[in-house]
Amino acid sequence: MSEKGDSAYARAGVDIDAQEAALGGIKELVRSTATPGVLSGVGSFGGLFRPAIDGLDEPILVSSADGVGTKLAVARLAGDFSTVGQDLVNHCANDILVQGATPLFFLDYVGAGVLEPKAVVELVRGLAAGCRENACALLGGETAEMPGFYQEGDYELVGFIVGMVDRKALLDGSRVRSGDLLIGLPSSGLHTNGYSLARHVFFERLGLSVDDRIPGIEDRRELVRILLEPHRSYLPALRPLLGHPALHAMAHVTGGGLTDNLPRILPGGTQAFIRVGSWQIPELFLAIQKHGEVDTAEMFRVFNMGIGMVLVVDPDAAGEVLGVLAGEQQKAMPIGTVQAGSGGVIYDFPARTAGGGHDDG
Amino acid sequence: MSEKGDSAYARAGVDIDAQEAALGGIKELVRSTATPGVLSGVGSFGGLFRPAIDGLDEPILVSSADGVGTKLAVARLAGDFSTVGQDLVNHCANDILVQGATPLFFLDYVGAGVLEPKAVVELVRGLAAGCRENACALLGGETAEMPGFYQEGDYELVGFIVGMVDRKALLDGSRVRSGDLLIGLPSSGLHTNGYSLARHVFFERLGLSVDDRIPGIEDRRELVRILLEPHRSYLPALRPLLGHPALHAMAHVTGGGLTDNLPRILPGGTQAFIRVGSWQIPELFLAIQKHGEVDTAEMFRVFNMGIGMVLVVDPDAAGEVLGVLAGEQQKAMPIGTVQAGSGGVIYDFPARTAGGGHDDG
Repeated sequence: MSEKGDSAYARAGVDIDAQEAALGGIKELVRSTATPGVLSGVGSFGGLFRPAIDGLDEPILVSSADGVGTKLAVARLAGDFSTVGQDLVNHCANDILVQGATPLFFLDYVGAGVLEPKAVVELVRGLAAGCRENACALLGGETAEMPGFYQEGDYELVGFIVGMVDRKALLDGSRVRSGDLLIGLPSSGLHTNGYSLARHVFFERLGLSVDDRIPGIEDRRELVRILLEPHRSYLPALRPLLGHPALHAMAHVTGGGLTDNLPRILPGGTQAFIRVGSWQIPELFLAIQKHGEVDTAEMFRVFNMGIGMVLVVDPDAAGEVLGVLAGEQQKAMPIGTVQAGSGGVIYDFPARTAGGGHDDG
Repeated sequence: MSEKGDSAYARAGVDIDAQEAALGGIKELVRSTATPGVLSGVGSFGGLFRPAIDGLDEPILVSSADGVGTKLAVARLAGDFSTVGQDLVNHCANDILVQGATPLFFLDYVGAGVLEPKAVVELVRGLAAGCRENACALLGGETAEMPGFYQEGDYELVGFIVGMVDRKALLDGSRVRSGDLLIGLPSSGLHTNGYSLARHVFFERLGLSVDDRIPGIEDRRELVRILLEPHRSYLPALRPLLGHPALHAMAHVTGGGLTDNLPRILPGGTQAFIRVGSWQIPELFLAIQKHGEVDTAEMFRVFNMGIGMVLVVDPDAAGEVLGVLAGEQQKAMPIGTVQAGSGGVIYDFPARTAGGGHDDG
């Protein structure tokens, strides 16, 4: 046993050298995300970034913090921490995208009882992949070994993004009008919300294990692959639309679902009217609803129900916007409108679907 | 029982309404930190901040992520989450201060198995106090309820700070010269590092409880008050020195102690020479060393040993720098020099102190 492995600090459960070994393994991954604004090397106290402000009238910084929720518990069960980093970066990028901002840089926090270098490298590999996808520098981060605080094998992963937008292109909901069209973009799965309920249904109610298949649905992938499908970033698809005058607002459908997230961009005296039959709700959500005996209204408040991003668009330019998005792998589609009303979301259910209207306003 | 309290999501352990109640309680605290740059209200997807860049030649953003470590476990034992938020903001503010930056804004992440509104409000109260102390806007944050992930009563607290500095005033270590003077500023206690070892010594080895006194030291405060003493922010004291040509660099003494943090700002071919007898090591550290039977070299790598910040200063201007700091409550003092050498830190121990030199280079 090395001198340091036998130190009093190691006996108390913290191994500084193991932490440094993990840090060494991630330097190359961090470098792979570097963009022209990055000034600092790995190891400086704070990350340094020079924003490109030339040509902007009034640069506004847009920032968001987020976690991955109990999708982390699924990653632990699967022994696969390689994708949750991508979830986190994409989630954060979407959160600032809806205000018209593109990312400058991202910082992460990884907490664990004992930091296993392999898991830390996997986490950072996913973060780096997400950062590259969003042209966002992984500027810094913190790894914290907290013996006794986390359960064995558990990792907490928190992220923080900073982006920028010129004030004249800022989307804050003020341009939304009654009559605007709502265009939905498909999610890739649960994204990062509703995992406590999904785990309850699949692992407790149905007693499935991570390598089982979900009964009664067409997707025959192992449960873990379906549940760990990364949160989609909408930035590559929507970048060509940023600054377009017909794009009035966007809502990222996260915790709270369409029900809580759409009202965040609606001006007073309006409400969202959603035609539930206008897109196909993925069978994953229907399986959760069926096996969990979950009320439809609650489903729309906990899960994205297949719509991960909503654009609020001038109806006269809807064709043009849909044309820009036509090259995308998954189809954007009109799912409703903004109408005069007392706030919240009105769901219009087709006759063949179980459930009823739900007004959360 | 309300309809929502009986929802499937609540049965899975997540109560969205309790989360919203806690969020409501913190809005006023968040508002108390607002600075002129803040554009967004609580509840927008991303926080909006307009940096004041007029008059800067080349604005550089400086960012850092951090946690509070297992000081959180002490807070839980004490049932007092009102101070750790201040710890976190001050820690982050110090981390960017050492590069010459002053804070723009801060975001937090709070994770728990069950979010008790009272604890969340206490956490945010501390964050808001720290933000006001550092003239830093609390721009946003995330609260995550993760049933089964955290132990009952435990809270994870993570923070992210963004500051700014004009490139010509950036401190990156490149101005450090052999012969420079090292000036130490006192810490207020353990700050946020070494808590796993300190808890091991006081709670396991000595079997103390949080309201006991530490045997053999003059400070008769309860153990919990000593251990929860907030991390000091050096920004108010050092703000008048920012941009001063004699201030060549700064090091924030966090995890890794003087031993690992001083080398981060030393150019090649130099090392730090520290006269250990030049300041009085607080009795708290000596008690940990004695009762924990901790080697002196390890003490200087785990704890700040009474020095929370080190300034690297042109020796010809040392009197002027010390004069600026003379009005401070706690005294700044010369603790060593930068000298030619092969890196790392050389400790010069006075004859009366136990322990020997330690070269970590």
